Amino acid sequence: MLNERILLSHGAGGGASQRLLDELFFHILGNEYLLQKNDAVVLPSVQGRIALSTDSFVVQPLFFRGGNIGKLAVCGTVNDLAVQGATPLYLTLGLIIEEGFLMADLLKIVESIAETCAAAGVKIVAGDTKVVNKGQADGLYINTTGIGVVPEGRNISGSLAMPGDVVIINGTIGEHGMAIMSERSGISWETDLMSDCAPLNGLIERILTATEEVHVMRDPTRGGVATTLNEIAAQSGVGIRLNETDLPITDGVRGACEMLGFDPLYVANEGKVLVIVPQSQAEKVLSAMHDHPLGRQAVIIGEVIADHPGLVTLRTGFGGERILDMLEGELLPRIC
Amino acid sequence: MLNERILLSHGAGGGASQRLLDELFFHILGNEYLLQKNDAVVLPSVQGRIALSTDSFVVQPLFFRGGNIGKLAVCGTVNDLAVQGATPLYLTLGLIIEEGFLMADLLKIVESIAETCAAAGVKIVAGDTKVVNKGQADGLYINTTGIGVVPEGRNISGSLAMPGDVVIINGTIGEHGMAIMSERSGISWETDLMSDCAPLNGLIERILTATEEVHVMRDPTRGGVATTLNEIAAQSGVGIRLNETDLPITDGVRGACEMLGFDPLYVANEGKVLVIVPQSQAEKVLSAMHDHPLGRQAVIIGEVIADHPGLVTLRTGFGGERILDMLEGELLPRIC
Repeated sequence: MLNERILLSHGAGGGASQRLLDELFFHILGNEYLLQKNDAVVLPSVQGRIALSTDSFVVQPLFFRGGNIGKLAVCGTVNDLAVQGATPLYLTLGLIIEEGFLMADLLKIVESIAETCAAAGVKIVAGDTKVVNKGQADGLYINTTGIGVVPEGRNISGSLAMPGDVVIINGTIGEHGMAIMSERSGISWETDLMSDCAPLNGLIERILTATEEVHVMRDPTRGGVATTLNEIAAQSGVGIRLNETDLPITDGVRGACEMLGFDPLYVANEGKVLVIVPQSQAEKVLSAMHDHPLGRQAVIIGEVIADHPGLVTLRTGFGGERILDMLEGELLPRIC
Repeated sequence: MLNERILLSHGAGGGASQRLLDELFFHILGNEYLLQKNDAVVLPSVQGRIALSTDSFVVQPLFFRGGNIGKLAVCGTVNDLAVQGATPLYLTLGLIIEEGFLMADLLKIVESIAETCAAAGVKIVAGDTKVVNKGQADGLYINTTGIGVVPEGRNISGSLAMPGDVVIINGTIGEHGMAIMSERSGISWETDLMSDCAPLNGLIERILTATEEVHVMRDPTRGGVATTLNEIAAQSGVGIRLNETDLPITDGVRGACEMLGFDPLYVANEGKVLVIVPQSQAEKVLSAMHDHPLGRQAVIIGEVIADHPGLVTLRTGFGGERILDMLEGELLPRIC
């Protein structure tokens, strides 16, 4: 099977589709829910409010240092649920495959999906496969939609940042985007850039155990830290000020950004979370984060202020202050 | 805005993405949940088991008589939930748009999504937009994932067909597929073929009110009635026998099938449901269906038998009987 290529018939709903399901998807991802094999899966009732998130992944290249489109598709949706204070439970998986795609590559990607689901403690419970003609996609596009459960009383939202809060991040920024760009621009052999792609729900559980006063959590993916904080500043009607010297950036990312002309504040992350909590909770939260492998380098990078509501500013190393606008244009298409 | 075209920046997560969200998606589809504008939406807790279904839509052409890809994407997922005995509640909407796509066409499609959601009584509560370079998609692909609630005690599954049951369908077959094929083959001007694309949850609610003994419901989409019944025969370990003379087929579909070389039993439907119930319940169910606009032509087309488990047969008008295999090959790629 591994030398085979995906044919239009694999998406036509008949016998070939059935064999692809049985031999690949059910075999690798199978669980009691996925194996119900009905038009919709029926899941147990859940206690608490339901969180729901959807994301399509069109990243190019499909395989990159630190991950591939499959791992990314699981992490992206798991993280979107987790930053809302939800415990991620179930994912759906929708594939759009270009005719001629290598079965061996599909296998690698589905295996990676299975591994990442296991690491995050979630299950693929429903799926769909479509095949389009050669030239009508770029290899593979993946949609994941996730369901989680939010305990009653927990309320985390981009609209809840308040003056006096601090902005914490769990580690160095810009790694996913620069790993992808270095592959695309052919400089990956010169660097050791690796995507930070990781499921954050374990780390976030630690944070939510440490304090009940998390105001905002969000993962700074497309558009990077600057764009995500702009959204929060606008939703909450507050100002946010970052300190340039506090921003954790590896030499590798800094060098690649200089070489390719990017600002790391606008580059996508796939394993980072911005946590906004009252100053009084910062120490507890940092200490909880430092105890988790994905939070060892957690650090305060800025503060929420009453001045200039809706704006994000950067206090530079030279003592000046400049406005960090929302991302405009097409900085990094197909980064996720 | 209507003369504009979609740019890569509309999918880059920055200001252009934000304006597309505000001016198009939030404006037309907005509701209290979608307007939370967080990474995941938080929905009220639901009483009962959760049903979940996902589907990607890659239909070509995007606009066809009787619908468009947007209407189809809502109906497809609503119907997959409804046939499982679930009341559909919420949908997510994931778009992959080809650079250069006309904003006016996107607007028409999103308006159609809004109308169909209103008709089906569901809400779009979360979404995602990605833009890929020109030539890396074919206009627009849509994923919808839906959540519904299934009352405790209701148990409908492809594995529950029993000898003695009858197979009911709510109307004429093959209309969606032949409407699409007639557009593609350029014969649409000669025919009045129209897709049957419709949300079936209203009709199905009537059926479930009429009897608690529905064993199987399934919508015969890709692969048509024959393929869907093959799946059910295999899952339930029963035989299914159809009577050719009972199959409701319009003259238009019959003619187009003859002209283009298709068998209507293998052609996709998007507004049809197969209902398998004990013979004793058939009258009640038919009567409930006849009272609904989408069930006026409901009719028994076959029976579940103990003979030849796993096989579907057709008793022909001439008194013979032949096996209806599962669809093989690529009869109708990109039909949904």
